[in-house]
Amino acid sequence: MSLLVTGSIGIDTIETPAGKRDDVIGGSAVYFSLAASFFSPVRLVGVVGDDCPPQLLAVLRGRGIDTSGVEFRKGSRTFRWHGSYLKDLNQAETLRTDLNVLAEKPPEIPPAFRDSRFVFLANTHPALQQRMIDCLDKPRLIVADTMNLWISSEQEELRKLLRRVGGLVLNDNEARMLTGWKNLVRAGREILTMGPQFVVIKKGEHGCLMCRDGEIFALPAFPTDQVVDPTGAGDSFAGGMMGYLAAQNDVSPSILRQALAFGTVVASFTIADFSVGALEKLTRQEIDRRVEEFRQAVAF
Amino acid sequence: MSLLVTGSIGIDTIETPAGKRDDVIGGSAVYFSLAASFFSPVRLVGVVGDDCPPQLLAVLRGRGIDTSGVEFRKGSRTFRWHGSYLKDLNQAETLRTDLNVLAEKPPEIPPAFRDSRFVFLANTHPALQQRMIDCLDKPRLIVADTMNLWISSEQEELRKLLRRVGGLVLNDNEARMLTGWKNLVRAGREILTMGPQFVVIKKGEHGCLMCRDGEIFALPAFPTDQVVDPTGAGDSFAGGMMGYLAAQNDVSPSILRQALAFGTVVASFTIADFSVGALEKLTRQEIDRRVEEFRQAVAF
Repeated sequence: MSLLVTGSIGIDTIETPAGKRDDVIGGSAVYFSLAASFFSPVRLVGVVGDDCPPQLLAVLRGRGIDTSGVEFRKGSRTFRWHGSYLKDLNQAETLRTDLNVLAEKPPEIPPAFRDSRFVFLANTHPALQQRMIDCLDKPRLIVADTMNLWISSEQEELRKLLRRVGGLVLNDNEARMLTGWKNLVRAGREILTMGPQFVVIKKGEHGCLMCRDGEIFALPAFPTDQVVDPTGAGDSFAGGMMGYLAAQNDVSPSILRQALAFGTVVASFTIADFSVGALEKLTRQEIDRRVEEFRQAVAF
Repeated sequence: MSLLVTGSIGIDTIETPAGKRDDVIGGSAVYFSLAASFFSPVRLVGVVGDDCPPQLLAVLRGRGIDTSGVEFRKGSRTFRWHGSYLKDLNQAETLRTDLNVLAEKPPEIPPAFRDSRFVFLANTHPALQQRMIDCLDKPRLIVADTMNLWISSEQEELRKLLRRVGGLVLNDNEARMLTGWKNLVRAGREILTMGPQFVVIKKGEHGCLMCRDGEIFALPAFPTDQVVDPTGAGDSFAGGMMGYLAAQNDVSPSILRQALAFGTVVASFTIADFSVGALEKLTRQEIDRRVEEFRQAVAF
């Protein structure tokens, strides 16, 4: 089924213990799209400036992603982020953020994309996420991401958003912040009372926790010693998950669990190289093989 | 098969967000013994002072634990620990430690215990752990625990110990400290080169990672919202694991994985009440039922 993603497209500068890369491809919607593209056709909506390297489109199109929803805005500059993992490989330190075009008028969802059945609203202002929902004809599943900034400053809009989505993906600290519960099982259950049918709490190197109507699913991360650049791990995870759900056209409990395993595995590939380097080279066969390895690594 | 544990028996004062308990039963060998007793006969070796509450023996004997290796030393005082989880439920802050009798002559392993086939050396000075090994006739599996203090101050004795044990159980920060690797998969593999056939890295609320000769096993913690007092979680985990291995008289890969699942589940009960309160009331049937729940919670 058609999978639509709206979110940031960016140019990153990244420092990790493995080295530094300047002006590389990044952004939540880019990682998401590439990860999802191994499972399902992907429609990408975002906006860049006229400084956007042509290589970006080449990489996206190389994976068959429909980029007709990417607006190139004349006279604007692309979103830029400079982050460092030198102090802690599990926690990015933001050295600089230039919102640039993301601080301007948001992109439009093209009419041809409005029939999308599976939709992922990557992290942005919750009012804007709701405007995106308003443009959709009859989505089957909408999943949103969010961040600490909106939890602290836009609680009301975020609450409205949560009543309109089927799933929420957020990290452990965000879940604690949103609910006031330190215990993640409690936090997850509390979030279900806010609207979504399921919530996925991402715990980075510790895996994820999914809560849904009396059901709890816990998954460790794929155990790997190949960690070069954690940027995009969470977005790739969400991309693998949503791509798998869209491909199955099914959000039943067992399919969602498998989707989370696929998301986990795609994320484990993403972090093994800088930027989208690993996703560019990845094949579906490698993903399927690692999912089987993962199944073995957690079986008892 | 016979399971021997040597380690601390203590009197704890514990503060958690759920309240405070003064002078309650504690100590690594006590939590271990109670947890293991659901699976296998347990022989306990430890030493207490004449201030030890008679209730301690009653609790241990109530679970069928052989306490003939517990020395009551006249004129000495029992080990005491005062810890707080008020700042962080996942990390005990030690407010006070009185080694008392633990700073004196160690207890002896009674001759009748020397034929023990499964042995757990709870955390203590690695030279003392080696002296315990010297007293054993023909153990099938020796597993040791250790701590940051010995890693930083007794590296040489610890290295000697590691060449003499089949398994090592330690927490994530200790594994990082011992090896210099931040990545736990690398840390685990490095520890295998030091001697043990397997290493179990405990990650508290995030579960555990087991490494063994090319094999990696990752398990989340049992997802629970019942966390009253985390004291003894790691020792209960080890107790459940070793008790299960001793009961099976088998340390093959699949049995070890099951043992870790049982350990995880026993630990999840331990933390649901102060001190050993939950372990006193627990039944094997409840453990088996929760292991099945756990299997469901991680299946995909």
